[in-house]
Amino acid sequence: MSDPLVARLRSALGDGAVVDDADVLDTHRNDHATFCTAGVPRVLVRPSSTDEVVEVLRTAGSFGVPVVTQGARTGLSGAANAIDGCLLLSTSRMNQILEISVEDHVAVVQPGVVNAELSRAVLAKELFYPPDPSSWEMSTIGGNIATNAGGLCCVKYGVTADFVRGLEVVLASGEVVRTGRRAAKGVAGYDLTRLIVGSEGTLGVVTEATLALRPAPEAALTAAATFRSIEDGIAAAAAVMASGLRPSLLEFLDRPTVQAIQSYRDMGLPADAGSMLIAQSDRGPRAAADVAQIAAICLSYGAIDVAEASDAEESRMLLEARRLVNSALEPLGTTLIDDVSVARSQLVPLLRGIAEIGEKYQVLICCPGHVGDGNMHPTVVFDRNDAAAEERALEAFGAVMELGLRLGGTITGEHGIGTLKASWLETELGPVSLELHRRIKHAFDPDNLLNPGKVLR
Amino acid sequence: MSDPLVARLRSALGDGAVVDDADVLDTHRNDHATFCTAGVPRVLVRPSSTDEVVEVLRTAGSFGVPVVTQGARTGLSGAANAIDGCLLLSTSRMNQILEISVEDHVAVVQPGVVNAELSRAVLAKELFYPPDPSSWEMSTIGGNIATNAGGLCCVKYGVTADFVRGLEVVLASGEVVRTGRRAAKGVAGYDLTRLIVGSEGTLGVVTEATLALRPAPEAALTAAATFRSIEDGIAAAAAVMASGLRPSLLEFLDRPTVQAIQSYRDMGLPADAGSMLIAQSDRGPRAAADVAQIAAICLSYGAIDVAEASDAEESRMLLEARRLVNSALEPLGTTLIDDVSVARSQLVPLLRGIAEIGEKYQVLICCPGHVGDGNMHPTVVFDRNDAAAEERALEAFGAVMELGLRLGGTITGEHGIGTLKASWLETELGPVSLELHRRIKHAFDPDNLLNPGKVLR
Ligand SMILES: Cc1cc2nc3c(=O)[nH]c(=O)nc-3n(C[C@H](O)[C@H](O)[C@H](O)COP(=O)(O)OP(=O)(O)OC[C@H]3O[C@@H](n4cnc5c(N)ncnc54)[C@H](O)[C@@H]3O)c2cc1C
Ligand SMILES: Cc1cc2nc3c(=O)[nH]c(=O)nc-3n(C[C@H](O)[C@H](O)[C@H](O)COP(=O)(O)OP(=O)(O)OC[C@H]3O[C@@H](n4cnc5c(N)ncnc54)[C@H](O)[C@@H]3O)c2cc1C
Repeated sequence: MSDPLVARLRSALGDGAVVDDADVLDTHRNDHATFCTAGVPRVLVRPSSTDEVVEVLRTAGSFGVPVVTQGARTGLSGAANAIDGCLLLSTSRMNQILEISVEDHVAVVQPGVVNAELSRAVLAKELFYPPDPSSWEMSTIGGNIATNAGGLCCVKYGVTADFVRGLEVVLASGEVVRTGRRAAKGVAGYDLTRLIVGSEGTLGVVTEATLALRPAPEAALTAAATFRSIEDGIAAAAAVMASGLRPSLLEFLDRPTVQAIQSYRDMGLPADAGSMLIAQSDRGPRAAADVAQIAAICLSYGAIDVAEASDAEESRMLLEARRLVNSALEPLGTTLIDDVSVARSQLVPLLRGIAEIGEKYQVLICCPGHVGDGNMHPTVVFDRNDAAAEERALEAFGAVMELGLRLGGTITGEHGIGTLKASWLETELGPVSLELHRRIKHAFDPDNLLNPGKVLR
Repeated sequence: MSDPLVARLRSALGDGAVVDDADVLDTHRNDHATFCTAGVPRVLVRPSSTDEVVEVLRTAGSFGVPVVTQGARTGLSGAANAIDGCLLLSTSRMNQILEISVEDHVAVVQPGVVNAELSRAVLAKELFYPPDPSSWEMSTIGGNIATNAGGLCCVKYGVTADFVRGLEVVLASGEVVRTGRRAAKGVAGYDLTRLIVGSEGTLGVVTEATLALRPAPEAALTAAATFRSIEDGIAAAAAVMASGLRPSLLEFLDRPTVQAIQSYRDMGLPADAGSMLIAQSDRGPRAAADVAQIAAICLSYGAIDVAEASDAEESRMLLEARRLVNSALEPLGTTLIDDVSVARSQLVPLLRGIAEIGEKYQVLICCPGHVGDGNMHPTVVFDRNDAAAEERALEAFGAVMELGLRLGGTITGEHGIGTLKASWLETELGPVSLELHRRIKHAFDPDNLLNPGKVLR
């Protein structure tokens, strides 16, 4: 009658840490990806310590049960989705900030700490943890690490990987390994830290992370500009990047996105805007001059309209258009978010090609993106009640990835593979790299217990 | 009579690319490491293209001959040293800069390009390739990548790994794999690029690299300060790092190093200096203010003497003390250079401990270092003609690594493992990590053909 796996976990971790109620399990099957299938889990476990994670993995291993680690399930690729009969390992109880060292510019955290909590805690000590995925109020550091999350400020500060100094990881075998170091530099052995970062729960469970911090920058000032064409906006973005200004944010919105925002809320965006740029500088005393220089660059590239903030409140308002993208698209239909990333020289062909794909498949594609890094989020918007539209949307979604690859880019700049893009990954990697990936997976997890079927099919 | 391996290589690559003259081979046995044994190579090959590297690896594989890849052999750990009966694969003919893209801030190079050549070529286009190991006039990009080389400007810009976007690598099997991408961001699959970076020729032969560039910074200004004690100098360095100034260089010299420099050349360094800091800012219009602020910080931490440069020439002169370290130590004896890296909070215990080790083993230990990153180069100086001194020097060399590990640091911040520190690596990693390393090595190179015995014994 009673499930022996559940019984064993309860006796090891206590009743409160182990859930097998079908309704609760059901609410934990999915992350935020559209269209990714999710299986029916056998049990959900919430360990509180590394030792308990060891116990969970040993137990799962002895039962031959696959383990899906879950942070906040805000992922966009199905990587955290349940697999039939799996054990869901939630990090929600491992949510302690263990240390913030002002002297070493380092934080040591458990994986379930929410990004925003850490960011606020370090800011209180005048320190800065840059990685800022838009999900930062919900997503966990463990999830950010396992997906190598990006965000708005990567263009200046880099991605999550650039701030991970060292990890404690529990392997499929239940063995515990420490990678990396607290020190800023080190080259002893292979870079296991980087191998775990972005591995989407397929190589091990991250139970502790040592993160690099920086001195807190001053408040950022914003400039925003609209352009007649895609070409003008992209050329201005390239000029900003070439200038040595080091913007702390550089975002792009294409015409359909600008229009969607303006119909959602009147932001005074011109009806003939073919593209829009939003930029920030956080260089303190130089920020005002930076913003003026960015505005001048935009004008010299034919901007219709340029606005410069002179304080934090105006800066926030100018960024609002970017922040409204998700809300503005929601009323228009279901969204499928691409995540292609290309070299900047390929952005115009990418955007032109995306417009063509929209026409070809008769779907709306809105394209906001982290233009400074060439990482765009072409978002296919469609009516999910219309089966034909759904099919066209899925084809357009794939066509965008194909275009990104044709332009020498990648299918995913920051959202990851999960199950959503596992077949596309094979195309991107090619057979030799794919085989190396399989061998690395096998080296870490010979019985394929950790998140099987994710990343590698 | 004739060696069939040599014959086969000659027929594939042409006579000029294959050397089996014993005298020439003998001059290619060693890198710059002191005390690392080197074997007797069977042949030296200088392929000119990826296809030729494939041919070389296939041939070596079919003969079961180990392959040691060599860049400029400036390594400090014996990683490029010959192994008995090995094939030396020199990248000296693969020395083309294939592309410098101003628009994408990217360079594509062959592995044999010398760092300084690339740095100058990109500077001519107002771009900047930051990694600057002191060996930059000699060492190759391939060697820099395979060792993840650091340098003086890492404190602001990061290490070689931070500038490698993608690689072309020939595997032991002769298969060619492309890792990473030209785009700034990407999370498709495991981070094979980072796995290859720092792997010291044990996982594959790098045949092409796509490197990130930045807009060229303005010329740097220098400040230099001497302090009565180690504690004052380290505290001042910590304060500079905490200030948000982002120095582009922050170097430390301890008392024995300052004294060695002053006796080598009269730089006016005070006889009672217990430590010295040299810092730079390259923030253009802000550099003068930065340097003044650094000087003020140093004074507030009790500096005996502070100098601020007001132009490039004065800046160069203030940096001269740092540049003279090697020349100043040379007349004092043979050197064994440690490379420990610790969190900044551990620098005082590290330096105090190093002084104690010097006393205990009765050897001179000079300690210059990249203090901003906590990466120090305690250098044991001894008389190689004195066998007892040599033995004490070797023990001191090991004691320094042991101390670094005890303080939570690493045995190597930038010089790598090679054969010199292979046994110490096992201590640093511990058994679980070591086993993962072996499995990764096996995944890439199942027959252990690439640089066997290096990194992993
Ligand atoms: C509104 C919204 C905005 C977003 N904005 C961004 C953005 O700007 N940039 C961006 O990069 N992403 C963004 N995302 C995607 C998502 O938030 C990130 O991928 C985030 O890092 C996931 O964190 P999580 O805690 O929700 O992880 P989950 O979704 O729970 O898990 C993601 C993956 O990580 C694994 N994992 C989680 N914890 C661990 C652990 N401790 N050890 C090992 N593996 C683990 C899971 O198995 C899974 O494979 C956004 C998502 C939403 C819904
Ligand atoms: C005076 C001096 C100053 C130095 N200063 C610094 C410093 O500031 N910072 C620092 O980090 N190091 C420094 N070093 C160490 C050394 O210069 C670096 O490690 C450098 O990166 C080695 O480059 P190389 O071309 O000489 O490589 P080599 O010494 O020839 O090889 C080093 C390793 O890389 C491998 N390798 C070389 N090319 C390839 C390739 N194409 N594919 C795969 N593997 C390859 C070799 O097999 C070997 O394992 C210094 C050395 C000297 C002598």
